Amino acid sequence: MSAESPERERRPHVVIVGAGFGGLTAAKALASADVRVTVIDRTNHHTFQPLLYQVATAGLSPSEIAQPIRGILGSQRNVTVRMAEASGVDLAERRVHLVGGDDIAWDYLIVACGAETSYFGHDDWSRSAPGLKSVEDALGIRQRVLEAFERAENDAVTGHPAQPPCLVVIGGGPTGVELAGALAELGRHVFRREFRGIDPSAAKILLLEAGPRILPSFSDDLSKSAVAQLADLGVEVRTGARVSAIEPGVVVLEHDRLACSVVLWAAGVAANPLTRRLGPPLDPTGRVVVERDLSIPGHPRAFVIGDAARFDGPDGHPLPGVSPVAMQQARAVARSIRRSVGGEAPLPFVYVDKGQLATIGRIRAIAMVGRIHLSGFVAWMAWLLVHIFYLIGFKNRVVVMIVWAWSYLTYRRGSRLIIAREAPRLR
Amino acid sequence: MSAESPERERRPHVVIVGAGFGGLTAAKALASADVRVTVIDRTNHHTFQPLLYQVATAGLSPSEIAQPIRGILGSQRNVTVRMAEASGVDLAERRVHLVGGDDIAWDYLIVACGAETSYFGHDDWSRSAPGLKSVEDALGIRQRVLEAFERAENDAVTGHPAQPPCLVVIGGGPTGVELAGALAELGRHVFRREFRGIDPSAAKILLLEAGPRILPSFSDDLSKSAVAQLADLGVEVRTGARVSAIEPGVVVLEHDRLACSVVLWAAGVAANPLTRRLGPPLDPTGRVVVERDLSIPGHPRAFVIGDAARFDGPDGHPLPGVSPVAMQQARAVARSIRRSVGGEAPLPFVYVDKGQLATIGRIRAIAMVGRIHLSGFVAWMAWLLVHIFYLIGFKNRVVVMIVWAWSYLTYRRGSRLIIAREAPRLR
Repeated sequence: MSAESPERERRPHVVIVGAGFGGLTAAKALASADVRVTVIDRTNHHTFQPLLYQVATAGLSPSEIAQPIRGILGSQRNVTVRMAEASGVDLAERRVHLVGGDDIAWDYLIVACGAETSYFGHDDWSRSAPGLKSVEDALGIRQRVLEAFERAENDAVTGHPAQPPCLVVIGGGPTGVELAGALAELGRHVFRREFRGIDPSAAKILLLEAGPRILPSFSDDLSKSAVAQLADLGVEVRTGARVSAIEPGVVVLEHDRLACSVVLWAAGVAANPLTRRLGPPLDPTGRVVVERDLSIPGHPRAFVIGDAARFDGPDGHPLPGVSPVAMQQARAVARSIRRSVGGEAPLPFVYVDKGQLATIGRIRAIAMVGRIHLSGFVAWMAWLLVHIFYLIGFKNRVVVMIVWAWSYLTYRRGSRLIIAREAPRLR
Repeated sequence: MSAESPERERRPHVVIVGAGFGGLTAAKALASADVRVTVIDRTNHHTFQPLLYQVATAGLSPSEIAQPIRGILGSQRNVTVRMAEASGVDLAERRVHLVGGDDIAWDYLIVACGAETSYFGHDDWSRSAPGLKSVEDALGIRQRVLEAFERAENDAVTGHPAQPPCLVVIGGGPTGVELAGALAELGRHVFRREFRGIDPSAAKILLLEAGPRILPSFSDDLSKSAVAQLADLGVEVRTGARVSAIEPGVVVLEHDRLACSVVLWAAGVAANPLTRRLGPPLDPTGRVVVERDLSIPGHPRAFVIGDAARFDGPDGHPLPGVSPVAMQQARAVARSIRRSVGGEAPLPFVYVDKGQLATIGRIRAIAMVGRIHLSGFVAWMAWLLVHIFYLIGFKNRVVVMIVWAWSYLTYRRGSRLIIAREAPRLR
């Protein structure tokens, strides 16, 4: 049964760090290659990150957007999956070091370790204003949001002064917009008829953006459309709102202090800190500045892809941290490895931009595909099809469709569970 | 919006502590009564406890067996739901005290606070051998089980001495049998093809029972059938196995020490400790010994139902802690309250025994309905229909059916997520 059997040892060993969109796609793209592959991830599941906001707002449950990595790759015989965390990489000795002391030798390395929430040096804000990068994050946010409504109701029915919660989302990118929209619907529709002391539809949802407009990666007209669609849902958007401090229950702006029940952080990400332990130059958000074939400068057999890589597109701007970039890069690196095994030179990576989408609540969205700009229901339909199509695992596609159909018909959300527990951690 | 508005105040106030099968059924049975009802629960969800073992063994996810209480009772206008924990009851002053200091006045009280895991005085065993009474418990068990396989695989592929995990379930009642059966299937079928270093089907599943036979509430022939069905699945049953100590990784029996990766406790329950703060006499497992109308002796307007009540059936044995008992008692108490409001005397509770069922893995079960004894697939079909039928919330019935159909066709389980987090608690 051993993965280290002599028969296998002859084949080059590809180690992939991270089982996000990039890592998983790379592993699959190496299915027919004459290599053995080890996929390392610190969790046992692949997370469909674009729908994390749905878990955070009780629309979907974790198992509907996360799939066991073993389940996805189990039938691919040249892959070994290990639940382990990489603590560092030795590029000269070609080894990945693991937390706990083990290490793994590689012939080819693909670093696909993704990004994490960044507070721009204010790490103390993370306690008061959680970010949204993992299932754990989403469950923590869901709990805070649900408890805010429960507390307000408890206060109201016991005669204490009470008002519906005020929920603040910091950061007007796609995640912030999606969160704010879904939160507004939670109070306005899902909770309707369920409270006696407070009016949940009067909950205040505030979206703060430091820059001059939300969704700056979209065109100006779509950005304006998003503000209008958010306003329809009851979300108040404030641009030019730079946060200077976050205290428990208070967000401090330059000229204002906002009292609030829940603060969520969607204002920034940086590459996973593993990149810092690689050695090569990083860009300001911690991404490895890679070669045109996505390899690490000076290390042609070590590649970085996805949110951990800095790769400038033809317009001179770095490619965005979205799944299509990671997946295209994964396939390019897999091709380069196959070529290298066969004695050929790698090819440079060429990105094909397929457009971008952001959803705003139940049936609203904006989309930009080349010169085509869509907004409202049409954009939302496009968003729905793309996301269902990309959901990894057939069961999930079917179940998510049914759960959504049901939720959308009835405005009910079944995943509104407050589950408080301290989990034992892996040794 | 206030629940304490004068218009409502005229109606008698029924306070229900606990939103399990008993509390929820009582609230629903009072829908048309001229009372206002407050349902208190320390969680925000009703848990379908008979399927908790499915969450613990990754067959279902929490939102498929738990439903928000507000969602279930939201449209019943005479009900207020409060997420709060009762710390005590003053029967003379007719108040329920809440954790945090508030208290609630009642005209009628229904204590439906259920049972919790009991270690018979060995509370220190709870850390090494968790019980299964809540969604939190189930998630904790799921995590331990999945991590045991991940650890064994990690050891194996790094060349350490490794063997598939040994999982021990203590207690041969329905919960222990269901857990052991589902664990065996996890290793034998679900994990098949997914590991490279260990053979998960060689995982050892041990079911320990202190008494002379498992499932003692069933007839002797069904108990024997259960042992045979468990053996088919690969579960080793040991009767007469009295546990004298549980240490990390070791279960100590009278004449044996069993090294194991995971220990689960399904050997005992006792009433929720709230019953101790009521005052009236308790039976040895902490249940309130109630009158024939389920009221607390000397307190005709305060009732105890379900797992927290001790009520002897016509055969002189106490009624078992199962949902049909709690639900029948709930309807009887609701009827008594309606009669009391109308100036009539309460009626005694009469239990109608509809039989009992226990499932053993994927398509096996035993059932006893009066003189009819069923086992194997027929019993399992009966079990399936009864459980789907009773699942509260239509969405869940449909989704659970689909998830099961999918799982049963493919032996895949999508809910195998290891999610480690420390959850913030409600203030």
